[in-house]
Amino acid sequence: MPTDARHPKEIRQDIRNGRLTGVTAGLGQNFVQANLAVLPKEQAYDFLLFCQRNPRPCPLLEVTDAGSAEPVGVAPGADLRTDIAKYRIYRDGEIADEVTDASPYWREDLVAFLLGCSFTFEWAMLEAGVRLWHIEHGKGVAMWRTSVQCRPAGVFHGPMVVSMRPIRSADLAKAVTASARFPGAHGAPVHIGDPAAIGIKDITVPDWGDAAEFGPDDVPVFWACGVTPQAVALASKPPFMITHSPGHMFITDVLNSALAAL
Amino acid sequence: MPTDARHPKEIRQDIRNGRLTGVTAGLGQNFVQANLAVLPKEQAYDFLLFCQRNPRPCPLLEVTDAGSAEPVGVAPGADLRTDIAKYRIYRDGEIADEVTDASPYWREDLVAFLLGCSFTFEWAMLEAGVRLWHIEHGKGVAMWRTSVQCRPAGVFHGPMVVSMRPIRSADLAKAVTASARFPGAHGAPVHIGDPAAIGIKDITVPDWGDAAEFGPDDVPVFWACGVTPQAVALASKPPFMITHSPGHMFITDVLNSALAAL
Repeated sequence: MPTDARHPKEIRQDIRNGRLTGVTAGLGQNFVQANLAVLPKEQAYDFLLFCQRNPRPCPLLEVTDAGSAEPVGVAPGADLRTDIAKYRIYRDGEIADEVTDASPYWREDLVAFLLGCSFTFEWAMLEAGVRLWHIEHGKGVAMWRTSVQCRPAGVFHGPMVVSMRPIRSADLAKAVTASARFPGAHGAPVHIGDPAAIGIKDITVPDWGDAAEFGPDDVPVFWACGVTPQAVALASKPPFMITHSPGHMFITDVLNSALAAL
Repeated sequence: MPTDARHPKEIRQDIRNGRLTGVTAGLGQNFVQANLAVLPKEQAYDFLLFCQRNPRPCPLLEVTDAGSAEPVGVAPGADLRTDIAKYRIYRDGEIADEVTDASPYWREDLVAFLLGCSFTFEWAMLEAGVRLWHIEHGKGVAMWRTSVQCRPAGVFHGPMVVSMRPIRSADLAKAVTASARFPGAHGAPVHIGDPAAIGIKDITVPDWGDAAEFGPDDVPVFWACGVTPQAVALASKPPFMITHSPGHMFITDVLNSALAAL
């Protein structure tokens, strides 16, 4: 994985100017990366309530004032219209455009939501000495839609999406304690063990991402996934929505380690 | 302090029927108690956002659907119009009534917010062996308006209110770790030591509650206080608002210990 240890301010400047265009894994080492969901004020209350009711899949880091694209809490001075490398524009729940600059689509009634992502708790597990197969093998993490329903809020409802990582049984407790320190980035696992218990029929066939290989002592461990809020929001077919494109996250000024002590 | 170790369901039934009318300290041992703030949907988005931006003073446990008085997340089957012993009714930010049954004031556009309270982290500190002067002496906790401004949201803005407890220097670390386990109940202290650093001029004269006595090894420790959201909401002079009366909390079905593992 390529790394870029500069401060997020410099990296965001390069993204804004079009000098960095790819996915953000490995960029801004040790800094919290975030999922983006932008909705009109009309849908913002229900979405905010949905996040409050489902903090594991939807760990809110920042909600901007309506019309403002500056996440003053986690990256003062940044601009959410330009500081992500690639955006998806949705109309009525369908992709309408994919752009590198969302400024032409910005409106005064838009509210931007930033949600923590798995990079933070994966970093915590790696620092604690927990091995992660998909990172060692350069694969995408395996994800499934589960039979666990989120608690609905207004127009938003749907199943929780989870990511799965095979963890050696000797490392299970360490994986839980390391990730639990970061409720702002999905926190502790939502399930450990039997995939069928959460409605996953075949652990070798993920709904998204790559299937992972299991060693003889590996146990499947499931974390709530940031795909959940996007999937739930799009299922309600909002008239307008902007998200980051998969893998192209927003890099905040918050250190991963600081997120544990907020 | 009188104690009542029955399940909260039975205690709430007695409150609903008027058989219990007093403050709730000591009732529902080991269960989470909560502050109540009820606002019209019109103000609910700004208030929800205010809580999201200020989680230490405003730790949200539950937000009901508009018009519903049932906190399905923390006490399914309960009724927030009747299951608190005493309510305050506000119009334009001024007390208009104090009642034992809020049903006559209920409206279809009302949203109820339940916020964690200090009883939970005080319980955690007592269990850890930290002595609390105001509890040992049957006094109210000392509270101040500080110079620390909350992050504003829409119409809501104002200073953080804190409660202060003298803690022996040998117990400081224990007080922090015990309370930090409960972000749903104000979490770790927001300040330790010099009162002037957060704008408190005289530690012997609280804005609310009783002054505490300091032993020679005691250090003032400050936690964000649930008075903050009420004070901030009332300062915006909302046309209508319902709160619990001071000390008359809502008793949830959630065990204090469970709140650390949510």
